[in-house]
Amino acid sequence: MLAAASLQSTLDEIAAEYVKHLGFRVEAVGEDSVTLPLPVTPGLVHGGGVLCGQAIVSAADTAMLLAMIARLGGFKPMTTVQLQTSFLRPVPKETASVAIVARVLRLGKSLSYGEVDFRVDGKLAAHATTTYALL
Amino acid sequence: MLAAASLQSTLDEIAAEYVKHLGFRVEAVGEDSVTLPLPVTPGLVHGGGVLCGQAIVSAADTAMLLAMIARLGGFKPMTTVQLQTSFLRPVPKETASVAIVARVLRLGKSLSYGEVDFRVDGKLAAHATTTYALL
Amino acid sequence: MLAAASLQSTLDEIAAEYVKHLGFRVEAVGEDSVTLPLPVTPGLVHGGGVLCGQAIVSAADTAMLLAMIARLGGFKPMTTVQLQTSFLRPVPKETASVAIVARVLRLGKSLSYGEVDFRVDGKLAAHATTTYALL
Amino acid sequence: MLAAASLQSTLDEIAAEYVKHLGFRVEAVGEDSVTLPLPVTPGLVHGGGVLCGQAIVSAADTAMLLAMIARLGGFKPMTTVQLQTSFLRPVPKETASVAIVARVLRLGKSLSYGEVDFRVDGKLAAHATTTYALL
Repeated sequence: MLAAASLQSTLDEIAAEYVKHLGFRVEAVGEDSVTLPLPVTPGLVHGGGVLCGQAIVSAADTAMLLAMIARLGGFKPMTTVQLQTSFLRPVPKETASVAIVARVLRLGKSLSYGEVDFRVDGKLAAHATTTYALL
Repeated sequence: MLAAASLQSTLDEIAAEYVKHLGFRVEAVGEDSVTLPLPVTPGLVHGGGVLCGQAIVSAADTAMLLAMIARLGGFKPMTTVQLQTSFLRPVPKETASVAIVARVLRLGKSLSYGEVDFRVDGKLAAHATTTYALL
Repeated sequence: MLAAASLQSTLDEIAAEYVKHLGFRVEAVGEDSVTLPLPVTPGLVHGGGVLCGQAIVSAADTAMLLAMIARLGGFKPMTTVQLQTSFLRPVPKETASVAIVARVLRLGKSLSYGEVDFRVDGKLAAHATTTYALL
Repeated sequence: MLAAASLQSTLDEIAAEYVKHLGFRVEAVGEDSVTLPLPVTPGLVHGGGVLCGQAIVSAADTAMLLAMIARLGGFKPMTTVQLQTSFLRPVPKETASVAIVARVLRLGKSLSYGEVDFRVDGKLAAHATTTYALL
């Protein structure tokens, strides 16, 4: 199993600068899952006073990539095929952080499938499903 | 019909700082659509040398918000219900910009539906569909 | 909590004839979930010898409707806003039945969200997420 | 370009019996698209008096399969990876038929992408996007 620090290094190495504005710190790594908090910093909040959807969808893609790397035991070239995100509850700017868990539902030879939960105080704030292709 | 400059001002006013890293400039506004280029700047490119998916999904959400504002004739409080994005072709870092067109497919009393095309040299690079709720 | 027999009666009453070809029998009802097997009958199998995707997507929509009725404690007029289904593994025609569990992830005043699992021998064969609107 | 009659024969040969209850007749075939009406027969209407969503999602998957066969110039083994459908307007039971157009957006070596429009009197009633994998 990959150490959280090792997964964090991989993220820091490959992620676009744009993604680094999310301020992700890998918290825990499982065999096919990753747990990481998304801090609700002022730069991620829009005029309506809630965490912007753009940060949520970016975070979903990033969290899933990390879960895939965890499941594969290391980085391999891959690409997102499709990402579907549902927004269940707004996340107010006063929230310290959103607890994100990304899980690989199936790792196939070419296609892999995953799911990402976003929770605040245990309640689902957003939910994403995604398909990845190994290149 | 809203002027492009007016829509740009609305975006600058309400968007989270995170979104501003996309460097959007509204190019054209139709009755129910918006055209805007996404410049492929180095900060949006990941270690594999292509435009990161996180920028694409963020851009999809932003472009649709702009199309909704255009269709409504001005900003009204609304929220993304769901955003589904498919990635058809990678966008190499040498690309100057991606042409994005967001269109409102249906403006309903409570729910609205839209579609976003991402094109490079006329070819579809990504495609998103989305549901918005007016609050 | 609704009895399985009562939920089955509601389904028999409101479902289109088309849906009845799926041969659903409600097995168990929870507070916000429904468990029901989808029998892999010859009429649901396509030329390639596997359960057809059309039956899976139809079943996802139906199972979610049942979970919503269970959660609401009875039928109320509602409509599917959006249904996203991923197909993780083919279901061979020799399979007796697919175990379907539909869960309401959030029941909101106007919009509700759910998730549907399709399992064969405990393994995920398909996975759907959906948004419903109460009318 | 495939003749409509030839595509219809392929459909009749490979489709599950379940799908035949939709009563599809291929109307026109383009290079990468298919046009076919979905007759709103009583068996497809649910208790609320509108075309059931289950028929729409089934039809989306079927129409896309036909567009893929048209694009490939003949049937090849393939599977649906993912199907996302949005329901924009209810289709009342008095409607004679829904005009469906399925288009291949990209035919890749392994993955292909498509889009399906459902229109009644020219207005969009439903809209689907989908990913297919060639086997």
